[in-house]
Amino acid sequence: MRQLYHTHLSPFCRKIRMLLKEKGLDFELVCENPWDRNLDFFALNPAGEVPVLVEPNGTVISGSYAIGEYLEDIYPITNLIGRNSSERAEVRRLIDWFDHKFDYEVTQNVLFEKAFKQYMGGEPNSASIRNGKQNLLYHLDYIGYLAQSRYFLGGDQLTLADLAAAGHLSALDYLGDVPWDYNPSARNWYALMKSRPSLRCILSERVRGARPPAYYENPDF
Amino acid sequence: MRQLYHTHLSPFCRKIRMLLKEKGLDFELVCENPWDRNLDFFALNPAGEVPVLVEPNGTVISGSYAIGEYLEDIYPITNLIGRNSSERAEVRRLIDWFDHKFDYEVTQNVLFEKAFKQYMGGEPNSASIRNGKQNLLYHLDYIGYLAQSRYFLGGDQLTLADLAAAGHLSALDYLGDVPWDYNPSARNWYALMKSRPSLRCILSERVRGARPPAYYENPDF
Repeated sequence: MRQLYHTHLSPFCRKIRMLLKEKGLDFELVCENPWDRNLDFFALNPAGEVPVLVEPNGTVISGSYAIGEYLEDIYPITNLIGRNSSERAEVRRLIDWFDHKFDYEVTQNVLFEKAFKQYMGGEPNSASIRNGKQNLLYHLDYIGYLAQSRYFLGGDQLTLADLAAAGHLSALDYLGDVPWDYNPSARNWYALMKSRPSLRCILSERVRGARPPAYYENPDF
Repeated sequence: MRQLYHTHLSPFCRKIRMLLKEKGLDFELVCENPWDRNLDFFALNPAGEVPVLVEPNGTVISGSYAIGEYLEDIYPITNLIGRNSSERAEVRRLIDWFDHKFDYEVTQNVLFEKAFKQYMGGEPNSASIRNGKQNLLYHLDYIGYLAQSRYFLGGDQLTLADLAAAGHLSALDYLGDVPWDYNPSARNWYALMKSRPSLRCILSERVRGARPPAYYENPDF
């Protein structure tokens, strides 16, 4: 059986979980928290980071960039990265936007500080959290701008760019930190994402010691 | 003529410059410093980040992830990302290692603090620089470990993983911040990279107001 090593609330793991579901690929989840510094896991991925995918034939693919491209390479029937080189360039630009820029400007400042830092023995930095929440506003505007001119963020089809964005936003939304009223077009796009079974099964999970807001799972929010 | 928008000392731009050269593709460089916040450049790439490639037919590709994959897609003759899905997964794991993990743990702490922060009106943070230099040691050990079992970092052929690593290390080396004596295998790998014309032409450039150490260009260092 295919295995995905993941951590709860990790946007990168959520993206790959959605991708596997959208492609109709069965997998079992193995919870691996990088802060436990498990040596067996380092043997699998020397970076000590999730996600890591272990294919049924034993092939190990580490990191959300390599896994995303690998799954497109090997299971191309449900295309999620674009049908030609221009579409792929646009989808990859947006994956990079969410997994680098959004991650650096928002997720690291809010999600890392509020949810993960405690496991590494640190205290949340309130200035970072404020900065992250402030940065989130223009990212919501950019999502809204894209969603006004396209059905999905990368074009008229669902792509890995939507899954990357939904990975970050759904994790932040668990903490109640996404002001959805700020941009109705961004909210409409996220409502569309919430209606997909690939995200719904993630939204039904709960993390020990923290409850999401009441609207977290509701596609009508 | 193909154009590459770049910033001096940016590891991501250096990677793409090497890739274009290795593929034998002509291009002209356009210097664009993101801290100038040039509105024309934001129209090209809404992220306001380099590198951006403009192909002769006008196609715009933004960000080193999208550009690297696009160039492999369109000009596959000189293969730099692996010949099958397993090789590609390994090369992409290592690109991710250097462009995320190394960038976050070393480059942002050293190069950003010492070279770029001043343009954004900040002062270098000496604790960050110390942390970055400390983190660099285990990364040199990992490069040395890879270089002992393989001819290049991603396997027996030069790949985009080598170019990603050389992009970061050459920029740090300009500042004199790479202790090459620390790991002789890592140094041997970098000597091999220095002998390639794709890196040599970058090493011959100088940045205003800063001189590199005497050994910077020398393949025998």
